[in-house]
Amino acid sequence: MRSDELIEGVLAGDRRAVARAISAVEDGTDELEALSAGVYANTGSADTIGLTGAPGVGKSTLATELVTLGRERDLRMAVLAVDPTSPYTGGALLGDRVRMQEHATDPGVFIRSMATRGHLGGMALAAPEAVRILDAAGYDRIVVETVGVGQAEVDVAAATDTAVVVLAPGMGDAVQMAKAGILEVADVFVVNKSDRDGAGEVVRELRQMLHLGVARDWDPPVLTTAATEPEGIDDLWEAIEAHRTHLEATGALLVRRRARLLREVESLAAARFRVAVAERLTNEPRLADDLEARRLDPYRAASILGKP
Amino acid sequence: MRSDELIEGVLAGDRRAVARAISAVEDGTDELEALSAGVYANTGSADTIGLTGAPGVGKSTLATELVTLGRERDLRMAVLAVDPTSPYTGGALLGDRVRMQEHATDPGVFIRSMATRGHLGGMALAAPEAVRILDAAGYDRIVVETVGVGQAEVDVAAATDTAVVVLAPGMGDAVQMAKAGILEVADVFVVNKSDRDGAGEVVRELRQMLHLGVARDWDPPVLTTAATEPEGIDDLWEAIEAHRTHLEATGALLVRRRARLLREVESLAAARFRVAVAERLTNEPRLADDLEARRLDPYRAASILGKP
Repeated sequence: MRSDELIEGVLAGDRRAVARAISAVEDGTDELEALSAGVYANTGSADTIGLTGAPGVGKSTLATELVTLGRERDLRMAVLAVDPTSPYTGGALLGDRVRMQEHATDPGVFIRSMATRGHLGGMALAAPEAVRILDAAGYDRIVVETVGVGQAEVDVAAATDTAVVVLAPGMGDAVQMAKAGILEVADVFVVNKSDRDGAGEVVRELRQMLHLGVARDWDPPVLTTAATEPEGIDDLWEAIEAHRTHLEATGALLVRRRARLLREVESLAAARFRVAVAERLTNEPRLADDLEARRLDPYRAASILGKP
Repeated sequence: MRSDELIEGVLAGDRRAVARAISAVEDGTDELEALSAGVYANTGSADTIGLTGAPGVGKSTLATELVTLGRERDLRMAVLAVDPTSPYTGGALLGDRVRMQEHATDPGVFIRSMATRGHLGGMALAAPEAVRILDAAGYDRIVVETVGVGQAEVDVAAATDTAVVVLAPGMGDAVQMAKAGILEVADVFVVNKSDRDGAGEVVRELRQMLHLGVARDWDPPVLTTAATEPEGIDDLWEAIEAHRTHLEATGALLVRRRARLLREVESLAAARFRVAVAERLTNEPRLADDLEARRLDPYRAASILGKP
């Protein structure tokens, strides 16, 4: 498939084209640039929702339930499951989501896991690009599910309109998540598996930590769900919609998206610059030799390399 | 203290100067550039040892024991405990290392925890800089201890001559560590708390995973220690020395250090370029406006910003 055909296919919402385009993002192929440019004008209408939390808290089940609720409202739904730490998709990430099968034949639903095999900027840049492809393909809500709670996952979550942080009793503690900086990016908290022992304590601990933070104009709600029942999912849907309404009403949506876009372009420019610098160090071994022989220190070398 | 006085102090091995210099690295202050340039010519004689593993496996106790062994051999020993995920030092990282107190009054030992408050390149760049300061100050062995097993910790571990990966029964599994890419960077494995249940299983699991990997010219040994006894620490010391001898004999030490240095300079140049790009986006709002209005796509914008 040629780039222009691929772009056309994505804009027409053709599933095969969308799948190929996301593979191109994963691989960081040469056609990515044309593809990205070709779909960009048609983006911006989807709402993006991040689902972050430790493995085992039930993110996939929550994502499936959100898809069900979205379909009831006649919205086209996409789920992008990303693993920032692995170059391989699949495995545990999508293996256990039997419930997602119920949406497999629905043309209004697109579910896909994603890794970064060759993308220059890692998942922090690949995920927003894949989201734009889904956006351009006409999906109204895009749920971005991450696999853990490390820095890479926080970066991916922070690149969505509404970041939902999921906890569950006995699955990693709030302190650990606070350390990863996840409390700062969360717009909605969910304590899932609320029928289990210790759920009330997780809610209390979380509320306590939130009280310690600075007051913001949006107070992240702490909800409880039992995704397998399902119970509390309607409240979660409402909370996400309320946050989105809040973002629009205050003008924060545009501010947030603009800031996100600029950070992304900065990262992309820096990643490309890095490649150029590496090439130059290869082509001009004298610079590398001087560094190695300690005639030239790293800062001075970086300054020299900063000049074209 | 002026920059030249600080450099002089570091080169003379003055502890106060060394402490201030490392604080300058943490803060990313302006004097860092002069400091880094000033000490660089005097680096390269220290051996660096990484200690990585999940919280609770006993890295601090192992570090303390290595310091004791080094002192018995009349070597000047430094320990740098880094937490890549936090801008704050101290806390759990150094709080529980009562045993380290035994070295507190020894002028041949320097122990310090470190965070990155303002350093441009994060811990991946700050840690090697702090190590060079300790190197220039005359420490013969520098143990770099990290706090967890995420990508940032792996990056820091990979920036040492000998990366020791520590595991313990019941403390995170080998699969998780494999995912973080830690098996690839490890030169020596230690299963600590070997007197506990399940230690044998951890060793077996680890050996199995290592057998799956590609054969390398250095076969990472799997040792067992009971650091609180202490037991097996002599073997650990010998394994580290053997690895170092192997690196020297094969010429891999120079190759590794050169590659590390070049990657560091690339990162530094890219981080500086990123700051320049961000400034330009602020000073030329038309570019940002075009991006936001989707008249200009991220790749095209990155290309424009790539030109000075």
